[in-house]
Amino acid sequence: MSRSEFKLISEIFAPISDLVRGRGLVDDAALFSSSPGHDIITTADSIVQGVHFLADDRPADIARKALRVNLSDIAAMGGTPRHYLLTLALPKTLDDAWLEAFAGGLASDHEKYSVSLLGGDTVTTPGPLTITIACFGEVRVGRAIARNMALPVDDIYVSGTIGDSMLGLEMLGGRLQASSELLDYFSRCYRLPEPQCSLGPRLVGMANAAIDVSDGLMADLEHICNASKVRARISLATIPLSDFAFGYVQKKSDLFFRLLAAGDDYQIIFTANAELRRSISDLSAELGVSITRIGVMEEGRGVVLQDEDGQTVRMATGGYTHR
Amino acid sequence: MSRSEFKLISEIFAPISDLVRGRGLVDDAALFSSSPGHDIITTADSIVQGVHFLADDRPADIARKALRVNLSDIAAMGGTPRHYLLTLALPKTLDDAWLEAFAGGLASDHEKYSVSLLGGDTVTTPGPLTITIACFGEVRVGRAIARNMALPVDDIYVSGTIGDSMLGLEMLGGRLQASSELLDYFSRCYRLPEPQCSLGPRLVGMANAAIDVSDGLMADLEHICNASKVRARISLATIPLSDFAFGYVQKKSDLFFRLLAAGDDYQIIFTANAELRRSISDLSAELGVSITRIGVMEEGRGVVLQDEDGQTVRMATGGYTHR
Repeated sequence: MSRSEFKLISEIFAPISDLVRGRGLVDDAALFSSSPGHDIITTADSIVQGVHFLADDRPADIARKALRVNLSDIAAMGGTPRHYLLTLALPKTLDDAWLEAFAGGLASDHEKYSVSLLGGDTVTTPGPLTITIACFGEVRVGRAIARNMALPVDDIYVSGTIGDSMLGLEMLGGRLQASSELLDYFSRCYRLPEPQCSLGPRLVGMANAAIDVSDGLMADLEHICNASKVRARISLATIPLSDFAFGYVQKKSDLFFRLLAAGDDYQIIFTANAELRRSISDLSAELGVSITRIGVMEEGRGVVLQDEDGQTVRMATGGYTHR
Repeated sequence: MSRSEFKLISEIFAPISDLVRGRGLVDDAALFSSSPGHDIITTADSIVQGVHFLADDRPADIARKALRVNLSDIAAMGGTPRHYLLTLALPKTLDDAWLEAFAGGLASDHEKYSVSLLGGDTVTTPGPLTITIACFGEVRVGRAIARNMALPVDDIYVSGTIGDSMLGLEMLGGRLQASSELLDYFSRCYRLPEPQCSLGPRLVGMANAAIDVSDGLMADLEHICNASKVRARISLATIPLSDFAFGYVQKKSDLFFRLLAAGDDYQIIFTANAELRRSISDLSAELGVSITRIGVMEEGRGVVLQDEDGQTVRMATGGYTHR
């Protein structure tokens, strides 16, 4: 640990850390307890400048996205996030103002999601800024939602809308023209996803399987199918799109399939028994989160897409690769 | 997640992962429980190629060092390590053989330290290989050893010997001549530290404060002094050196102060009441781990060094910066 690392931690990150458990970040490790009767859910994600975010993205947004992709993983298992560790590999060119704005972004999400920073590490790198967050959540013992428990005849649902993040990225890249109002909205979908942290824990006991949409709707659905050894039959017409995305897809139909393969939506795909349709509809109304039934699981493997004429299209296997 | 990432995880890391809790690494997050009556200790460390290790270091050694620096943090708090998350930012040039050797290194330490791999993330980077490990250990509720509870009149102890890692690094860099036997021994101290995982948990209830020697004996002792608001008075003649280091220091006396400031030893410095001298000596014998009393805490601040003639030297404040 160099002198500048001490300064960085004590002046920038200690003030936003969990004062009790993180002990002002002076120790090399931190302590926490899980609530009685709860399992701990843990996940880690790295993001790299030039790969997952751009040098001129706002530091507060980069920070919040780094945290939120982890919160999304925990929500999809039915968990409630609690704490996290932050590890930064910092290029020497990064200045304090950037880091203060980055820490400010985290702090604003601490309140929004009731999570706290426990500790971590900072190192220097000759390479690009690399941000790693390891996050801990809780779920009642034995109640975590897995991706391998989907059953044939389960309904398939997805929260929110699909593809808005990709549209934002296209607009930011100048590949898609949009009014400044639309650019604001969709670029925000890309830069600052809203993980379904309220929905996730409420799916415990309802969803048989769940996953968050990080690799793309099709790829993530395929993860459930592979793990559960079932086939998903999706009705293309039911896939929830924002109004703008819908209008755009009508003009450029090839875009539709790209939206299905695009990632970074951080919605939750889940499956549930048909008896729960009413409960799920009630839950959607209670939380003010749209939840759309998009298909059904059946015996078999893979993902089958069905168009409005009842024609089936089997999509090629394929994941989503970040830029 | 790209296709190659699936392959990497399923073929190289899933076979060495915790099959029950890590679920074959197919989920984005993993589950574990803490033992009843235990707190969870958590820590994260990153290492970067060209900063913390060299491109031609053996991948199995890099892997084990990345893991062991975390185990050392947990041991110094009196904890027993249990699980970890691994996050890799991989340059595209890294081949499967390298990664298999890396995974093999981790697997061999799983057995040695009874820890398991729960999950993590892999991303590509245009920069240097960056390895981040977040580790979880356990300690009985309320019994973790902190660095801020040292008391004036506490004895100060350190395990093992100090400076061997730095001597290894000097030999590897060609700045210090040594026989191939000595090079083997000392380069191993640098590349493959042995964290005090047996000693750490046994210090619970004995040590008032503890820290592991990662930044250097002086810097880490200073961390205890700052956190506990006490002064350490160290008797230079008692600082434990290996025979080779002792011989070397006698020839080049300026090296001694460099050894005290060098890092990467991963021994434990701790403080304890003088009534416990006999118990600590018994513990040392029982574990076969050398534990040396090197000084005493007193009212005041900072670290005071005392030579054999009783002269005191106050070392300048300063940490250890990795190469």
